[in-house]
Amino acid sequence: MAVNLNTPNPADLLPVAGVRLGVAEAGIRKVNRRDLTVIELVPGSRVAGVFTTNRFCAAPVQLCKAHLQEAQIRALVINTGVANAGTGEPGLANARATCEALAAQLGVAANQVLPFSTGVILEPLPVDRLVAGLPRAVADLRADAWFDAAHAIMTTDTLAKAVSSTVEIGGRKVTLTGMSKGAGMIKPNMATMLGYLACDAAVSQALLDQLVREAADLSFNSITVDGDTSTNDSFILIATGRAGNTEIVDAASADYRKLRDAVVDVSIRLAQAIVRDGEGATKFMTIAVEGGKDRDECRKVAYAVGHSPLVKTAFFASDPNLGRILAAIGYAGIADLDVSTLRVWLGSPAESVLVAEHGGRAASYREEDGARIMKEAELTVRIDLARGGAAATVWTCDFSYDYVKINADYRS
Amino acid sequence: MAVNLNTPNPADLLPVAGVRLGVAEAGIRKVNRRDLTVIELVPGSRVAGVFTTNRFCAAPVQLCKAHLQEAQIRALVINTGVANAGTGEPGLANARATCEALAAQLGVAANQVLPFSTGVILEPLPVDRLVAGLPRAVADLRADAWFDAAHAIMTTDTLAKAVSSTVEIGGRKVTLTGMSKGAGMIKPNMATMLGYLACDAAVSQALLDQLVREAADLSFNSITVDGDTSTNDSFILIATGRAGNTEIVDAASADYRKLRDAVVDVSIRLAQAIVRDGEGATKFMTIAVEGGKDRDECRKVAYAVGHSPLVKTAFFASDPNLGRILAAIGYAGIADLDVSTLRVWLGSPAESVLVAEHGGRAASYREEDGARIMKEAELTVRIDLARGGAAATVWTCDFSYDYVKINADYRS
Repeated sequence: MAVNLNTPNPADLLPVAGVRLGVAEAGIRKVNRRDLTVIELVPGSRVAGVFTTNRFCAAPVQLCKAHLQEAQIRALVINTGVANAGTGEPGLANARATCEALAAQLGVAANQVLPFSTGVILEPLPVDRLVAGLPRAVADLRADAWFDAAHAIMTTDTLAKAVSSTVEIGGRKVTLTGMSKGAGMIKPNMATMLGYLACDAAVSQALLDQLVREAADLSFNSITVDGDTSTNDSFILIATGRAGNTEIVDAASADYRKLRDAVVDVSIRLAQAIVRDGEGATKFMTIAVEGGKDRDECRKVAYAVGHSPLVKTAFFASDPNLGRILAAIGYAGIADLDVSTLRVWLGSPAESVLVAEHGGRAASYREEDGARIMKEAELTVRIDLARGGAAATVWTCDFSYDYVKINADYRS
Repeated sequence: MAVNLNTPNPADLLPVAGVRLGVAEAGIRKVNRRDLTVIELVPGSRVAGVFTTNRFCAAPVQLCKAHLQEAQIRALVINTGVANAGTGEPGLANARATCEALAAQLGVAANQVLPFSTGVILEPLPVDRLVAGLPRAVADLRADAWFDAAHAIMTTDTLAKAVSSTVEIGGRKVTLTGMSKGAGMIKPNMATMLGYLACDAAVSQALLDQLVREAADLSFNSITVDGDTSTNDSFILIATGRAGNTEIVDAASADYRKLRDAVVDVSIRLAQAIVRDGEGATKFMTIAVEGGKDRDECRKVAYAVGHSPLVKTAFFASDPNLGRILAAIGYAGIADLDVSTLRVWLGSPAESVLVAEHGGRAASYREEDGARIMKEAELTVRIDLARGGAAATVWTCDFSYDYVKINADYRS
């Protein structure tokens, strides 16, 4: 049951000039489900990516990093069901075989293909079934298939996640469409499980490389469902250059700022969609920390609150057990934090109340106010550390019976 | 439902010469339950303690630290129901009033009393009811009341936790008895929720201060239930000096090693009891990491595995979803970890199998072996990092529906 998240309307997902997508049922792990996606890019497209920092990074992630260094990317191939992680040398060979098979069909080189896998870790990729499915996915390539592709990359997701927007840059309309997947093993540490954002802007490779990191930091790297950083996290930003704008080459230009804002906005919506569809989620929580000495300590506090199973179960119960929030702030790892000056608010779209100050419960706080706000599906915990000018926001969800059920049952 | 943990037999809990305990029903939060414990120490007793590193450390913790510096401790007072944490200046005043009231009844100074509270955070301590209950607890003081005291300090614990042992030191029999409480908000970072260990050995204050830290590091600081470090963690080591042994003053002496081994052994059993009674626990897991460059990195890996909700729900489901263990090892924060050389075993009291090597699943691993071992209630995950000679062990439990139920319901 996702929190305030609906299936995107196919008509709202705008084709991006220079991008075609196709899907197929390859039977990777289960039959009768679309589990294979191919994305073809027009020649001249630029691609940038950020990937998991997990040391057990999956075989396809290792190939993606190498191919992005070596070649102009012309295609992406994504399978669900098996993550091809913790698979050693045979896993790398299977990922290479996947790239080679798709490259042959598209008439490009194998290192012009980026491979992605998501699913169960430590199991071998059934590469023969995957390769056998590729011709069907290639035959299905269409510019208007973002809706289908967003479905085909789902695993425990309950809803497809895709967003489009447009922005005028240099007198030209630039179109952005992105999709993401993920619901568990979500605490990205470079990028989320899988996220793809394509636009048709013309922008230099150097700026695209900068932008993918900026956007990931403010979106996919600011969410958590369960604190587990995946082996396969990947976020890919594509710019086909087909919008007709003058190539953006200056980070200080108005054009770059416009593109940056549009990319960050779509990235945040895609990242939030993952949290809204978090495994077992019944509430969407924004943890906004301000008044820190630097962004890093604000993120530490926000993640401590956002990861605490005690905080997350209290939110699930709609119980304003606010002491658990204070405890999490207290163990976040800021050694010289003065708890007598910080303040904490609990808020909903409708109202916000001060709950803690002077090292304890705010004198003005009434339990019935907390109880009323906690019943909302969207909640904000705002924390003012009162020791500086930095801020950071993290999005997360609550922790319910269904999280346990989903993860005790997954695989079976 | 605790994992292989039984209520201690009252006859197995040995009185410690110089220590008397008394309990009472004070109605701190609920009626008809023992929620107040007094421990009286004979003059000349030495006391050492370690406490939570949570910045929101509770008012009683602040007083404990000050009193241990200022005075010879003669009594401890422990209440459940309300943690007196996140209570600001009024909380400190309430803790002081508690010490003053007990000191007056025992004829000692207020700073010779150590106060402890455990329960809900951010709510005011009903100090009048607590003080009104003190005379009944004092009237109840007996040397053989460890069993009753272990019950009176429980909150969400399902079983009392207490252990005794004896060791011969310098020709004299030394008796050790300890008790602990805690089941949730357990990831001690100095000591556990509440742990008390008394012995009648004669030992210098300097060695006692050293020993309490050593013992905490190897026991209470090596467990986790949910990763939440409490505001009230306290571990207290008492030595009354009544055993008649020659005072131990040399850390290199055989006498100190004997005492150290006995204290560490009791501490580990008390700490493990907390995990066995972890909220909703159905399995007791030992995460043993070896072959690390230093103990710190071994602990990082062990805690990453022990905290992962995905690992803990897989253990709850008895599902050998071992890729989740690899993922947790991979994100533990060792930047130069070589996953191609590390090895992972899954073990039970009956057998142990190699599950991962060469960056993937071991060739010899069979799913049915993993499935059989996972059905056991006691499991060991052994990880050889293959990069050095250091080791560390962490104990934890699985993550079940009941954890969510207990923490969504607690307070109500």
